[in-house]
Amino acid sequence: MSEVRISKNDLDGGEGDGKNLFHALKEFDVPVKSYCGGSGVCGKCKVKVADSHGKLTGLTDAERNLLTEEELDKGYRLACQADLFSGEVVLEIPEYSRKRAQIILEDGQTLEVEERPVLKKLHVTLSEPSLDDPRGDYERLTGEVQDSYGIDVTDIDHRVQKSLPRALRNSSSSGDSYDLTVTLFDDSEIIGIDAGWQDELYGLAVDVGTTTIVSYLVDLNTGKTLAAESRVNPQVEVGGDIITRISSVHGGSVDKEEMRSFIISAVNDLIDDSLEGAGLERDDLYYSVFVGNTAMHHFALGIDPNYISRSPFVPGRQGKYRLKARDFGLDIATTGYVDWLPLTGGWVGADHVSTLLISEIYKQEEMTLVIDIGTNGEVAVGNSDGVMVTSAAAGPALEGYNIKHGMRAEQGSIERMNIDENTLEPSYETIGGQPPVGICGSGLLDAVAELLKCGVIDNGGRFQAGVDAERVREGENGQVEYVIVREEEAGIDGEVVITQGDVRELQKAKGAIQAATRVLMDEIGVEEIDRVLLGGAFGNYIDKESALTVGLFPEVDLSRISSMGNSAGEGAKVALLNKNKMEEAERISQFVEFVEIAGSSAFRDKFIESLNLPHKDLDLYPGVRDRLSGTQKV
Amino acid sequence: MSEVRISKNDLDGGEGDGKNLFHALKEFDVPVKSYCGGSGVCGKCKVKVADSHGKLTGLTDAERNLLTEEELDKGYRLACQADLFSGEVVLEIPEYSRKRAQIILEDGQTLEVEERPVLKKLHVTLSEPSLDDPRGDYERLTGEVQDSYGIDVTDIDHRVQKSLPRALRNSSSSGDSYDLTVTLFDDSEIIGIDAGWQDELYGLAVDVGTTTIVSYLVDLNTGKTLAAESRVNPQVEVGGDIITRISSVHGGSVDKEEMRSFIISAVNDLIDDSLEGAGLERDDLYYSVFVGNTAMHHFALGIDPNYISRSPFVPGRQGKYRLKARDFGLDIATTGYVDWLPLTGGWVGADHVSTLLISEIYKQEEMTLVIDIGTNGEVAVGNSDGVMVTSAAAGPALEGYNIKHGMRAEQGSIERMNIDENTLEPSYETIGGQPPVGICGSGLLDAVAELLKCGVIDNGGRFQAGVDAERVREGENGQVEYVIVREEEAGIDGEVVITQGDVRELQKAKGAIQAATRVLMDEIGVEEIDRVLLGGAFGNYIDKESALTVGLFPEVDLSRISSMGNSAGEGAKVALLNKNKMEEAERISQFVEFVEIAGSSAFRDKFIESLNLPHKDLDLYPGVRDRLSGTQKV
Repeated sequence: MSEVRISKNDLDGGEGDGKNLFHALKEFDVPVKSYCGGSGVCGKCKVKVADSHGKLTGLTDAERNLLTEEELDKGYRLACQADLFSGEVVLEIPEYSRKRAQIILEDGQTLEVEERPVLKKLHVTLSEPSLDDPRGDYERLTGEVQDSYGIDVTDIDHRVQKSLPRALRNSSSSGDSYDLTVTLFDDSEIIGIDAGWQDELYGLAVDVGTTTIVSYLVDLNTGKTLAAESRVNPQVEVGGDIITRISSVHGGSVDKEEMRSFIISAVNDLIDDSLEGAGLERDDLYYSVFVGNTAMHHFALGIDPNYISRSPFVPGRQGKYRLKARDFGLDIATTGYVDWLPLTGGWVGADHVSTLLISEIYKQEEMTLVIDIGTNGEVAVGNSDGVMVTSAAAGPALEGYNIKHGMRAEQGSIERMNIDENTLEPSYETIGGQPPVGICGSGLLDAVAELLKCGVIDNGGRFQAGVDAERVREGENGQVEYVIVREEEAGIDGEVVITQGDVRELQKAKGAIQAATRVLMDEIGVEEIDRVLLGGAFGNYIDKESALTVGLFPEVDLSRISSMGNSAGEGAKVALLNKNKMEEAERISQFVEFVEIAGSSAFRDKFIESLNLPHKDLDLYPGVRDRLSGTQKV
Repeated sequence: MSEVRISKNDLDGGEGDGKNLFHALKEFDVPVKSYCGGSGVCGKCKVKVADSHGKLTGLTDAERNLLTEEELDKGYRLACQADLFSGEVVLEIPEYSRKRAQIILEDGQTLEVEERPVLKKLHVTLSEPSLDDPRGDYERLTGEVQDSYGIDVTDIDHRVQKSLPRALRNSSSSGDSYDLTVTLFDDSEIIGIDAGWQDELYGLAVDVGTTTIVSYLVDLNTGKTLAAESRVNPQVEVGGDIITRISSVHGGSVDKEEMRSFIISAVNDLIDDSLEGAGLERDDLYYSVFVGNTAMHHFALGIDPNYISRSPFVPGRQGKYRLKARDFGLDIATTGYVDWLPLTGGWVGADHVSTLLISEIYKQEEMTLVIDIGTNGEVAVGNSDGVMVTSAAAGPALEGYNIKHGMRAEQGSIERMNIDENTLEPSYETIGGQPPVGICGSGLLDAVAELLKCGVIDNGGRFQAGVDAERVREGENGQVEYVIVREEEAGIDGEVVITQGDVRELQKAKGAIQAATRVLMDEIGVEEIDRVLLGGAFGNYIDKESALTVGLFPEVDLSRISSMGNSAGEGAKVALLNKNKMEEAERISQFVEFVEIAGSSAFRDKFIESLNLPHKDLDLYPGVRDRLSGTQKV
């Protein structure tokens, strides 16, 4: 609970009549929830008042109906029903009454979001028409919304207008009034009418990835995620990578409408599953926020993707984009809306803008590095003075591809490992505790860091000659390798090893990301980073020390490295909950400066230095150097 | 041509550099046409300048390309290309350069409409993207529209956004720029993109009548009507009158969606015919304005019609209504829009608001009566101080129904007639000059007026005893009748007569309209009318003297009675041409006061007095009384 002290004299119009607590809290910028506009109907604006005697107006019938005996005993009131007429009171605001939702990220971090969804439900009571007041149904309804809520409705979805006369008459509660719930979009358009009062409000956040599509069904009244579902992006049938898919459309072997329907039908399946699990109907869901990379954005929206893959890499649209759910083909309420977060230039998509939204990098004084790891690694460096962003072709090694026994983070993959410095014997953990069948990105990162710490490989990534251990040996094609899992322990018919080639792949991936980071640092003119935020699914799983040891990013204290979970999806959730975040995302996409590094000599030079573990210049990593000093022949 | 004298010193920023004539004319509130924003591309802003030597900047290349030799010789310039840098010049503005269109009504009246269509075409030249300027296509395009035209585009139809990348590249004119036409709706949404520059702009005005649907294809650049088409409203299958149709929906024998599709499919047929005749495509037509009575408005929009036919007669929506053509089901460009004019209360629909828009009754000092004759006669009385409006159930007599030999105004119907005062022999004209087969509304009005003038019927409408004429006789059921056409002259197998019952029907129809008028005059507190405007198809055809003689309206000088043609359709045209007219219609619907007369004793009393020809109190009709004095036994 938070406490607020309110004095009659501090308030606007402090003299004279009583001041309503609900409005007073707004003035104090501690808004409390209400779905009835403070008319004593919804019972959401509960506050606890100590020692209110002789200062507040008495209990109303609405409070006797909506508060329990216990609450009344403890001094709870509905803020909208109590007027302060003298002196001062101390209000305790329970968490559930505050207009804030908490988004819980990884590492136990929480992000507090003020609840201002673009979607609202309003409880409206209308007098029935008469010969003396024969206004049209739409005019009567919008007039009442104006009178009760001060909201100037300017539009109504045609499908709602069509059935409005019957919907009003079906909501007749007594003989002379209609009692209904209006679903309002962006304080301007009526997109739903229901009889009686019902305050349920849901939204869907969707992250369209190249490989995986993830959706989150969110209760917009509480900020809670009711369902998280995922599906493989069916476009993988056409090609695993973006370039193949775009070429297929350009070459005519697949139609762009077909590419669109792959995504839309997968999302519609996710919606079915989510709604079924939550016991909801399609018409309960009026709003969805989408994120995804530039190609997925174009594919999903059916925008011609040909020109994003060739110089000068121009998207068909950059800014935030709003369209009717029915125009998008989405199986939510047909009158509902879909918002896409904006893109920034080049290959930095709405998913990375979403990550930046969660990182709040642009609000901090500290110099922050945000890394969103995927086949393309998006990297942002900056603070409130400016943010630079770029995209580095890291390759798929960190997702387990192009690695001899590499695999995605699935059952039986090695996700953590350690090597004993004396015996050079490994220990490992697999996902699900299954017998090991391969190694995923985080395991690979650990393996390379451990091999380095034990002196099995050197700073250049080369297996050292003369290491006396059974597990280090010459394998196929004369390549040196380290045996992580012997055949008898493995879940496959053979060993699991990490080869010289695998180490090289990891060096290239992490080298590209570090080099991109260092190009941006040079552009900004800083030599150190204060803080590292890791986004994307991968960011959750990696061991921070291993990542630092191999030089995925510049050296910072371990405590200054955090994971943001599936940051793209979390950003979409935040935008669901607070409509101002869509504007904030738009400002981000304009505030950040995109730096094109592909083909630049600055990047090439940094890349070569960054191929070393952690870097060619060990002075840049004094902490890592100290830890390695006993083992490395440096 | 109109003349404008422009002096350098009268202009904003009069000192210093030259002032562009195009902008100077705007300041002088004599705007001239331009579809290129004054960039010397469209050649529309031609003006003739006398004695410009030493005052204007010289001819530009654009002028040499866009003006003919002859025009150059005569001193024509493009206003946007000429700057006034000293002294003063006299500009002659040709009619075709003015931003005004003339709508020609009946009686040779014209209505001047400023051209401000809600639809615009803009000529845009865009630099192609580069690595230095890789903005998204939408952002590049809207940025250029902002720079060139000062218009802040905020939206784009999703279907246009989808194909925008290709549309831009298909419009590449040289190596480094795109040359295109943007179709913009309401200065905010892009609804079309075409390669190159093309300024054609069309609109469709539709009047949905209970019996007949009429459409007008209008060139929005000139105001000219390119095609006028009509079709019977297919809903007549369900019932001839509105109440039957609403009951059929209410009773469940017809679905409201089916009723909607009757109208929409008929309008789509009209569109096909109009476009084919004009050599245009569906995608050339982006905008349509609809009018119709309250029931047709609801039926066409698919709004539940049940509650408009029972007390308190509440429409589902009163205000103007805008929706996407695709949501309305209209076969114009799928990204286009449809606007419906607003309704007023009761049974006074968008068609009558449209009539009032044309009448401009609310702008005049003179006390004006506007009558829109149909099965329901809409009547408005007032001036700029206030307008009252009501609807009178006149019955279908004036449309030729419930009359023994009555018929619609079709081939062979008697539309004009005269009776010789001495011989009581008739003369008549039929539509198409065909042998007579019946009598239509205007013929009936003439017949009754002539019978009255000749003393065959009296002021009470009764056939007089003792009239000595072969043509006056006792007919079937002992009813007295006048034989207009003998069997041998008729186009049918029998005579054409007008019976005592027919006279009674006309008395009731005109009595209802006059009584409604007099109720409104009493409410306003006036005893005389200065001017009468007749709207609706019927208003075109009637003989004004006959209408005055029988007392369809209060006595005014014949010269103060005018027809407005199909005023409902004309109002829709005006709204097509000038978007401000839609707001004006909205203000009309709020400005006018609806008076419910059905069942009121004031109406009943006036109705009884008004059944007389022209009225029970002949002092109200001194002119008519004088004309009748020789024949009438009064």
